[in-house]
Amino acid sequence: MVRYKAIIAYDGTNFHGFQRQQNARTVQEEIEKTLTKMASKRIEIHGSGRTDAGVHALGQVIHFDFPYPRPLEKMRFGLDTQTPEDIAVIEVEEVDEAFHARYLVKEKTYQFRVQLGKPRSPFTRFYASYFPYDIELAKIERALPDFLGTHDFTSFCASGSSIEDKVRTIYEASVTWKEETQELVFTFRGDGFLYKMIRIMVGTLLKIGNHRMDETSIPAIIAAKDRNLAGPTAHPEGLYLKEVKYD
Amino acid sequence: MVRYKAIIAYDGTNFHGFQRQQNARTVQEEIEKTLTKMASKRIEIHGSGRTDAGVHALGQVIHFDFPYPRPLEKMRFGLDTQTPEDIAVIEVEEVDEAFHARYLVKEKTYQFRVQLGKPRSPFTRFYASYFPYDIELAKIERALPDFLGTHDFTSFCASGSSIEDKVRTIYEASVTWKEETQELVFTFRGDGFLYKMIRIMVGTLLKIGNHRMDETSIPAIIAAKDRNLAGPTAHPEGLYLKEVKYD
Repeated sequence: MVRYKAIIAYDGTNFHGFQRQQNARTVQEEIEKTLTKMASKRIEIHGSGRTDAGVHALGQVIHFDFPYPRPLEKMRFGLDTQTPEDIAVIEVEEVDEAFHARYLVKEKTYQFRVQLGKPRSPFTRFYASYFPYDIELAKIERALPDFLGTHDFTSFCASGSSIEDKVRTIYEASVTWKEETQELVFTFRGDGFLYKMIRIMVGTLLKIGNHRMDETSIPAIIAAKDRNLAGPTAHPEGLYLKEVKYD
Repeated sequence: MVRYKAIIAYDGTNFHGFQRQQNARTVQEEIEKTLTKMASKRIEIHGSGRTDAGVHALGQVIHFDFPYPRPLEKMRFGLDTQTPEDIAVIEVEEVDEAFHARYLVKEKTYQFRVQLGKPRSPFTRFYASYFPYDIELAKIERALPDFLGTHDFTSFCASGSSIEDKVRTIYEASVTWKEETQELVFTFRGDGFLYKMIRIMVGTLLKIGNHRMDETSIPAIIAAKDRNLAGPTAHPEGLYLKEVKYD
């Protein structure tokens, strides 16, 4: 057996998320079907983590064990062209059998796109969230650094999550304005993120930018460990898993 | 009756083009259905010209006569929100009854996006053409100015077109390289374009950039008035009607 690591991108619009499940089209299932055909033997893949229905990936990382070695570009091209068009295989490399796409994650980067203004672009209706209300960018910029550092992010985790340890470290929390497409593009980089955490952070930041919450309220919300104090969960179509880093 | 001019955008992916036809979903039909409901009376629209199946618009122009005057933002908002999500209504203005969206066109601008490199992005599979072969941009840049000016473009018109006068004037023919998305973005501006003309021009330019046709061959192809001498027709998903200008 040879272990391969692959960097993949996918348009999440027509997937019920990354993780395999009964009676629903998922990214994991499509890639496993293709690899199983290529190897003539059941192959399972492991991703760096799940993504929800409608969430996209520019640089999701997976690993899998293949029964025999194959030239890397042949493996990449075979996987890329035999999976459906909404999955792209960007890079394949051979890794040590100790490598694990989920357990060894060091850092993840997500982006979140929000289109402002009217009308909603027909070209980004599946690729950016939409917020047609007043936004004061300076307020969002004032609030963003309060997410940095190591905190218990219980207030920014969807209720129902079974994960016990809700302490995460955020290294980057920033926003840029793209005039051409009238979009806010948020970037969040950290050692890991809780269930729906980025979508709740963005929902809260939009509430702040829209004057419905004070721009200094993030530290108190974090301290309270109460999901009810944070803002709403932003829609999945704006979210992109951009990069996963390992040691 | 009050005449309105509207600027609209649409994602052409799920339309069989702009123009109304039997048993196929078209942009014209969707907008007419909405206007007819708004006016409780059959309303017809006129576009600046057709676009083919899969072709997009950032700034298509239409006009229509409405039985009574309505505040412009109300009209825009009503049309925008009551048409399906793949149509956006950007602007509505009241115009003189002499205005006609097709007959009075002075200038049209089209863009054409081509993604180069591997793999094909899952996010642009409906929004850019794909050319994964070698391209020498300098050759395309050398050939582009040969389209400028007034010429009989018979060689760049799909056979079967019923239009007799194939003389058109091109004011701008340019290309830029977008590093971030690995895309060539062509811009063509002229007093009008023949059936599939831009897609044939792009197909020919890609053949030149790929070393399969000399970069000085455009003038001879134009002079020959023979469609067989030009390159193939590029795919519709890369084409955008960007702007229509009137006197």
